[in-house]
Amino acid sequence: MPFVDDIGFLLSRASGQLVRSVNAALAEEGLRVRQYSVLCLSCESAEGRSQRDLAEVLGLDPSQVVAFVDDLHRAGLVERRPSPADRRTKLVAPTGPGRAVAERATARVNARVAEQLGVLTGGEQDVLRALLARIVSLPVAANS
Amino acid sequence: MPFVDDIGFLLSRASGQLVRSVNAALAEEGLRVRQYSVLCLSCESAEGRSQRDLAEVLGLDPSQVVAFVDDLHRAGLVERRPSPADRRTKLVAPTGPGRAVAERATARVNARVAEQLGVLTGGEQDVLRALLARIVSLPVAANS
Repeated sequence: MPFVDDIGFLLSRASGQLVRSVNAALAEEGLRVRQYSVLCLSCESAEGRSQRDLAEVLGLDPSQVVAFVDDLHRAGLVERRPSPADRRTKLVAPTGPGRAVAERATARVNARVAEQLGVLTGGEQDVLRALLARIVSLPVAANS
Repeated sequence: MPFVDDIGFLLSRASGQLVRSVNAALAEEGLRVRQYSVLCLSCESAEGRSQRDLAEVLGLDPSQVVAFVDDLHRAGLVERRPSPADRRTKLVAPTGPGRAVAERATARVNARVAEQLGVLTGGEQDVLRALLARIVSLPVAANS
């Protein structure tokens, strides 16, 4: 099989294409895709998310996540709060400006992703989403 | 929609998971995934491939490809030859050892990719391949 038909190659090529386009859209908000992901995930929970949980969902080393949280903290977009369940655990939660930036950034990102995926029908995008979710098989409920 | 159901996120998450696994397999050959890709593509043509062509297929800047070719050249795996069609164009072609390394590396990589994609049936992998190929829409014949 030619190298360009290899699923591993196609996956990394498609992902690279999307990430470049998304990073270009995020530059206008002073973000890159990893920081954006951390910000969006932290916005999804009322009390914030632990860095360990963020690392697991993103498939990154906790040390990488700490660096991205530091970037967001310096920009005033997130804060670290003690967990109500265990004060030794810090949760990452968005600030007011963080929520506003996340909302604007998400609109920009969704527009770019829609553009990149425009060659696929809505039904095909659903198939792609379901297949990718099975490869990733996150330990969190994907349909929560 | 929860962030983890976003196709952009799933694509980059699945790609990251696969690349980490493939890089681990390639370490035993002293390669990383980008160098491996350049080596495999250079092995597919009898006379070699131009750096511009490699950059286009891989979706990278030509300057990045030059650096990967330099790595492979230092390791004795590829050489630059003048193109028979235009001597000002250099083609990247594998050396004998380069072909041997590419063959061994491909076997290792295919085993890892098969492992990562094992949650999908063969038919589902074909669907995934076809959807990804449409997103990437390479300017080269994918079924040549």
